[in-house]
Amino acid sequence: MRREKVSENVIARLPQYYRCINELYDSNCVRVSSSTLSDRIGFSAAQIRQDFSHFGEFGQQGYGYNVRKLRYEIREILGLNSHNTCILLGCGNLGKALLQNFNFEDCGFFMVEAFDKDPAVVGTTIRGVEVSGVERLELMLDQDHPDMAVLTVPREEAQRAADILVEGGISAIWNFTGAEIQISNSDVVVENVSFADSLMKLSYHLNLKREETDEPVFLAGGRHLVKP
Amino acid sequence: MRREKVSENVIARLPQYYRCINELYDSNCVRVSSSTLSDRIGFSAAQIRQDFSHFGEFGQQGYGYNVRKLRYEIREILGLNSHNTCILLGCGNLGKALLQNFNFEDCGFFMVEAFDKDPAVVGTTIRGVEVSGVERLELMLDQDHPDMAVLTVPREEAQRAADILVEGGISAIWNFTGAEIQISNSDVVVENVSFADSLMKLSYHLNLKREETDEPVFLAGGRHLVKP
Repeated sequence: MRREKVSENVIARLPQYYRCINELYDSNCVRVSSSTLSDRIGFSAAQIRQDFSHFGEFGQQGYGYNVRKLRYEIREILGLNSHNTCILLGCGNLGKALLQNFNFEDCGFFMVEAFDKDPAVVGTTIRGVEVSGVERLELMLDQDHPDMAVLTVPREEAQRAADILVEGGISAIWNFTGAEIQISNSDVVVENVSFADSLMKLSYHLNLKREETDEPVFLAGGRHLVKP
Repeated sequence: MRREKVSENVIARLPQYYRCINELYDSNCVRVSSSTLSDRIGFSAAQIRQDFSHFGEFGQQGYGYNVRKLRYEIREILGLNSHNTCILLGCGNLGKALLQNFNFEDCGFFMVEAFDKDPAVVGTTIRGVEVSGVERLELMLDQDHPDMAVLTVPREEAQRAADILVEGGISAIWNFTGAEIQISNSDVVVENVSFADSLMKLSYHLNLKREETDEPVFLAGGRHLVKP
């Protein structure tokens, strides 16, 4: 499928569309209007129609979208039908949490192997995934060509690990380390999960709410009160 | 400080500005131009000037921004100078990872107590934070009024935990559960960390890169080749 380049804002909304449409699909909904989608997701119906228009026509004016088709198309756009393989580097608490609880297959990724340097973890199996020693990593990259690596090593080891992965031909890195990794090969996709950015956004909204609450309340007649 | 309502896109860029300016500050940089910021962050200088304009004037035309003042103002806008308190619910692998490795204080939050129902964890201390039994939660909320709660309980317990927190007067929830929690009080700020959304974004970009690589290469003379 050919398509135009779309903005990061549209791309960031796609997973939200997908989750919503997937729920409709699971509840056997056949057809949905952009206004119903709008009610469920919170974006305007016009916004939704405009976003979808970047990827071709999914619906018909006044008739709504076919849920099954729309779900399939969004899966295609997001690459969820691609059957990628992935590995995980760093089986500390965060790595373990992802291996045990996160459903990689729902996002089109099959977890094939995990790596750690701690002898206490190497040789164990976490939810069906074997943990190997890091000394096997380069051989594994060379032989099995996994598509993506989840990076959950300590922050100070992030760059060195990324260098090995890129050298080994990885196509994408999902970076949880909080470090900004430098990648020499611009074809490698890096997606950063920054907990700090997320918490700062929360902090911003919390701060704003307080300012709103502390604002003077203007009453009829020009008097004003400050809320306690 | 009074300010106008700004878009979520601007807010999402603020933590990136802060991280960049904080690095400059740590390296004793006194003054920075929007074009230097642009080189480091990757947004255009015009975009940066426009974003900053929402919050008042930080800089002077042709003279750049005072790094110390800019850092302070962005901290103020993000609420990082607010000294909020927070608690954490659910000391599984993810909760432990956050307690052990995430620097809450860098984001203006002081972690006061963690909660879990597992007797093996209750009574222990993780990086200086005591883990209490969940039966203490309501009393603690009532007495200590923490500002924010980190939600790292299993997905299926998310809504019940959120209900207790909201009932107990919490102002904000940082939700890692992957569940969409319903909040009855619209004054409560909820920030969701969705690993699935992030991985789907990665998948989108990985897919797009492949399509670009697989595109036919047009040669002079009208012939074309498909890359292997």
